[in-house]
Amino acid sequence: MKELSSLDQMIEALRRLPGVGPKSATRMAYHLLQHDREGAQFLGNAMLNALQQIRHCGSCNTFTENAVCDTCADASRDTSILCVVESPSDQLMIEQTMTYKGLYFVLMGRLSPLDGIGPQDIYLDKLIRRATDGVVEEIVLATNFNNEGEATAHYIGETLKAKGLKVSRLARGVPVGGELEYVDPGTIARAILDRKST
Amino acid sequence: MKELSSLDQMIEALRRLPGVGPKSATRMAYHLLQHDREGAQFLGNAMLNALQQIRHCGSCNTFTENAVCDTCADASRDTSILCVVESPSDQLMIEQTMTYKGLYFVLMGRLSPLDGIGPQDIYLDKLIRRATDGVVEEIVLATNFNNEGEATAHYIGETLKAKGLKVSRLARGVPVGGELEYVDPGTIARAILDRKST
Repeated sequence: MKELSSLDQMIEALRRLPGVGPKSATRMAYHLLQHDREGAQFLGNAMLNALQQIRHCGSCNTFTENAVCDTCADASRDTSILCVVESPSDQLMIEQTMTYKGLYFVLMGRLSPLDGIGPQDIYLDKLIRRATDGVVEEIVLATNFNNEGEATAHYIGETLKAKGLKVSRLARGVPVGGELEYVDPGTIARAILDRKST
Repeated sequence: MKELSSLDQMIEALRRLPGVGPKSATRMAYHLLQHDREGAQFLGNAMLNALQQIRHCGSCNTFTENAVCDTCADASRDTSILCVVESPSDQLMIEQTMTYKGLYFVLMGRLSPLDGIGPQDIYLDKLIRRATDGVVEEIVLATNFNNEGEATAHYIGETLKAKGLKVSRLARGVPVGGELEYVDPGTIARAILDRKST
């Protein structure tokens, strides 16, 4: 099969994408070669271009082409509050709520000792430098509410509290529109413990 | 969002892959940028390289880097019989049975008028030239047994029979290991009609 090496390499390369197995990769390669050579060209160029252009924002650590990303460069944001999220997608979700006007720090992952992901992999040093710049007063931990996310929030929270910063976490409780009958007991238990006086 | 254009382009390019929507494309892009930059480089290069190197075999129409593919160049194959398949994957499945020693023609698709795929899109002219080279005696139609595959087999079969060639189709019937109780009635009906004397 020596003479198929370009095709084999193409399939092998597509398998590097998360969630793509050998069958999907083969289907993708055939599709591109047969029906969308322009798309393959676009994909190849976009990959190589992105690798050259994209780096981490010096301030919030998200992906950007500049030294500092759009959000961090926006002078209208509240610089005293910093929201810590796992990924740029999470940041985007929070932005879409239109209720948060502070800045962000994007961990690009979450602590997961079983997968070998430790504090250095979530840019903890960079976060500490960012959070202790003298301007930031409060850190909002907005990591996910699964095991790894909670552990990450706990670890970061303890570290930053030791530096004298105010640390908060997104509220947990019954979702908007939630009917108690269909909400899991753990969530209801948390909502009872965290009940608010009205 | 002007300054995210490289990232946006990367996500847009990944969406060109079949079966990849906006969420998957975003996840793939973040994964490559954060955890597998080498993979992104490999993918970019493999795409562009494949586009330059890969063309259709002059004889059987499959993807190859040479003028004629390995299988067609193999002098030990039976040149009097030509198996027509929809895709290189189908050819590979037939090769794995080790029961076919003839040559192939790969349509790279199937007739599908509703999708605008007509005879010119499945290289029918090339197939006719290949089949009427004076050496080929029998055509085995091995397109899929769904509606489009059957229609394609019928169309090609009629065209080639009109040229005086012997045309056959893969046998239909109860699969090996099949238990009648769990086989669909259509397949059993076909197996009764095509029953073989023993």
